[in-house]
Amino acid sequence: MYSVTVRDSMMIAHSLRGAVFGPAQRLHGATYVVEITLCRRDLDRHGIVADIGRAAALLRDVLEPYAYRNLDDLAEFSNLNTTTEMLAKTIFEHYADGVRAGRLDGDTDQAIESIAVTLRENPDAWARYDGAVHG
Amino acid sequence: MYSVTVRDSMMIAHSLRGAVFGPAQRLHGATYVVEITLCRRDLDRHGIVADIGRAAALLRDVLEPYAYRNLDDLAEFSNLNTTTEMLAKTIFEHYADGVRAGRLDGDTDQAIESIAVTLRENPDAWARYDGAVHG
Amino acid sequence: MYSVTVRDSMMIAHSLRGAVFGPAQRLHGATYVVEITLCRRDLDRHGIVADIGRAAALLRDVLEPYAYRNLDDLAEFSNLNTTTEMLAKTIFEHYADGVRAGRLDGDTDQAIESIAVTLRENPDAWARYDGAVHG
Amino acid sequence: MYSVTVRDSMMIAHSLRGAVFGPAQRLHGATYVVEITLCRRDLDRHGIVADIGRAAALLRDVLEPYAYRNLDDLAEFSNLNTTTEMLAKTIFEHYADGVRAGRLDGDTDQAIESIAVTLRENPDAWARYDGAVHG
Amino acid sequence: MYSVTVRDSMMIAHSLRGAVFGPAQRLHGATYVVEITLCRRDLDRHGIVADIGRAAALLRDVLEPYAYRNLDDLAEFSNLNTTTEMLAKTIFEHYADGVRAGRLDGDTDQAIESIAVTLRENPDAWARYDGAVHG
Amino acid sequence: MYSVTVRDSMMIAHSLRGAVFGPAQRLHGATYVVEITLCRRDLDRHGIVADIGRAAALLRDVLEPYAYRNLDDLAEFSNLNTTTEMLAKTIFEHYADGVRAGRLDGDTDQAIESIAVTLRENPDAWARYDGAVHG
Repeated sequence: MYSVTVRDSMMIAHSLRGAVFGPAQRLHGATYVVEITLCRRDLDRHGIVADIGRAAALLRDVLEPYAYRNLDDLAEFSNLNTTTEMLAKTIFEHYADGVRAGRLDGDTDQAIESIAVTLRENPDAWARYDGAVHG
Repeated sequence: MYSVTVRDSMMIAHSLRGAVFGPAQRLHGATYVVEITLCRRDLDRHGIVADIGRAAALLRDVLEPYAYRNLDDLAEFSNLNTTTEMLAKTIFEHYADGVRAGRLDGDTDQAIESIAVTLRENPDAWARYDGAVHG
Repeated sequence: MYSVTVRDSMMIAHSLRGAVFGPAQRLHGATYVVEITLCRRDLDRHGIVADIGRAAALLRDVLEPYAYRNLDDLAEFSNLNTTTEMLAKTIFEHYADGVRAGRLDGDTDQAIESIAVTLRENPDAWARYDGAVHG
Repeated sequence: MYSVTVRDSMMIAHSLRGAVFGPAQRLHGATYVVEITLCRRDLDRHGIVADIGRAAALLRDVLEPYAYRNLDDLAEFSNLNTTTEMLAKTIFEHYADGVRAGRLDGDTDQAIESIAVTLRENPDAWARYDGAVHG
Repeated sequence: MYSVTVRDSMMIAHSLRGAVFGPAQRLHGATYVVEITLCRRDLDRHGIVADIGRAAALLRDVLEPYAYRNLDDLAEFSNLNTTTEMLAKTIFEHYADGVRAGRLDGDTDQAIESIAVTLRENPDAWARYDGAVHG
Repeated sequence: MYSVTVRDSMMIAHSLRGAVFGPAQRLHGATYVVEITLCRRDLDRHGIVADIGRAAALLRDVLEPYAYRNLDDLAEFSNLNTTTEMLAKTIFEHYADGVRAGRLDGDTDQAIESIAVTLRENPDAWARYDGAVHG
């Protein structure tokens, strides 16, 4: 199996609901370092998994609605805890939508089998979600 | 699949038996940077894999008997080579015991499916053990 | 010259005032990875710059009032832009106060000559402030 | 499952063919940080996946024909795009040959089940290939 | 003293002349991770050393003529060894020109006192040049 | 000012004397990641601070007597606490001896003005010693 990973980051504010979160129930923020890994069985005719420039541009577009925002204000998350795990899944869903819509060009809309999203919230803690792109 | 990783480190002394280990047969030591990854299929009702604070505290407790110790002196390792691989497995076993005993709270004792332990011994070499928590 | 550095991190929310900050004028947040470097000319009688445990504990205490907070709400910053540079200076001042007050024990209140504070806001950008502890 | 990873790096020149590569169609170069991960189900009688010294030496030997070379000049790549993905696969093949030939000593020629190769081309992009060693 | 650092990278090909360079006399390449540090005594009225967006854009512009190039072909380096040290100095000179020309806006053309450029060529080796911006 | 840094690592065992060290009074160990920075005002005729291969080989030789050793057994440290700070100074002294003895070749024995040694003991703590090579 082949994969390619591109990395970006975003800075957001949010708060979490539930005693389990302790002081993180207060409005605070995070720099999330985001890594997207695209997996496929064979390379395309150029010898790549996907165009890294397009893969990075799609990541930028997926993160844009959240960058420099208070996630508590966004309708998308109105009844949800924006935990690192949940954000990883959200980014996965939007990114997979982009792949299926042909945003990465070439044959990637069909050939990318799975995607993994890693969100690092500090040097000692990170979360990840991975899943299939199709079916 | 979702996962969360927490990281800690410990400093130990030990020696290894067998010509294959070359100068590492002498008493020496290591800073092991330890990463524990907890995997589960769905998030709990708070939107998390596990409480990161508890996950880190359990890791601290699992490492405590080894921290600032000469592993050659510990009964637990009396007939074993404390290689990085073997230590990764040992930490896995103790951590999985803690998960099954409910140390992470919530529904994690049942929901955590697998655990991976990575031990980094220097910037250019690391070992990993992963396995199922149940059955 | 000798130095010792300890590292910690904090997650905060804030907003910045001024068109120069673009989208960072909106309420957002950051994980700041904070490094404190303590410099002195000679080591103490134990052969150290300062007790690393105490140095890390003082850093924890200095960061505590900001951790998991919206800096826009804090009286300390009421008429200030909480830029990374300004926060580095603020942490420097509080840490230097702690050193002069003997918080690090031993002879450090006199012997530590200068302190540097580095705040990393993402993998591609960081700020630093360094200054003398005395005079 | 157990694994061990060793890391090395190489500096090469090359160019890529196809409009998709944009400015990378020009002759340029890269420092590739290379990580080889060896996976096996059980440890050998010394408690290791493989001798780390031999694993690193085999990696060094596999990279040697490319190090400080212009890949465009090498017969091995005469009709191929030396993308990061393709190089990961090439290194995988040569490394797996070495494992099957007993280069790692002990029982590794049979026991190593799979190998993963990660090539980091800059801090924000990397590629990976993993596959089975046998059959 | 305050400083701000921004980071970028570029991929280049080149060769070095002189037996001291061993195999690096052959045409090869490198990913240079480039860090620019801007130092000044006091912050501007916004509380910053310089606008990080502009600082990063100037770095991008300074690196652009070299990115994805064979440095051996550039007139600028026709009689020079493009060592990591020499490239650090070259980037310093072009960046300092940009600062003095007001590219960073605000009062930075006068207020930035010194600049440091670090070029990392692999995880185990890097070079740096620092100097004054004025006089 | 120009500088070049090379990095290596060593694994040692040791214990520290004094209540201030808490559990580190027990025999334990560390992986020390060691960085040597060589500083000079002008480059040599090849355009370098020093031959990186020789700089790395000298570092290897300086670390060799400590690698895979229990420092408590070495006569060199018989009445000393082998703290990270003290080890940084020790490595500085031996490395500076090598520079003055012409181990780096070229004009480095005279031209290298100062050396800095950084020892990282874990991701959150490191020490450094820097000093002049001559006089």
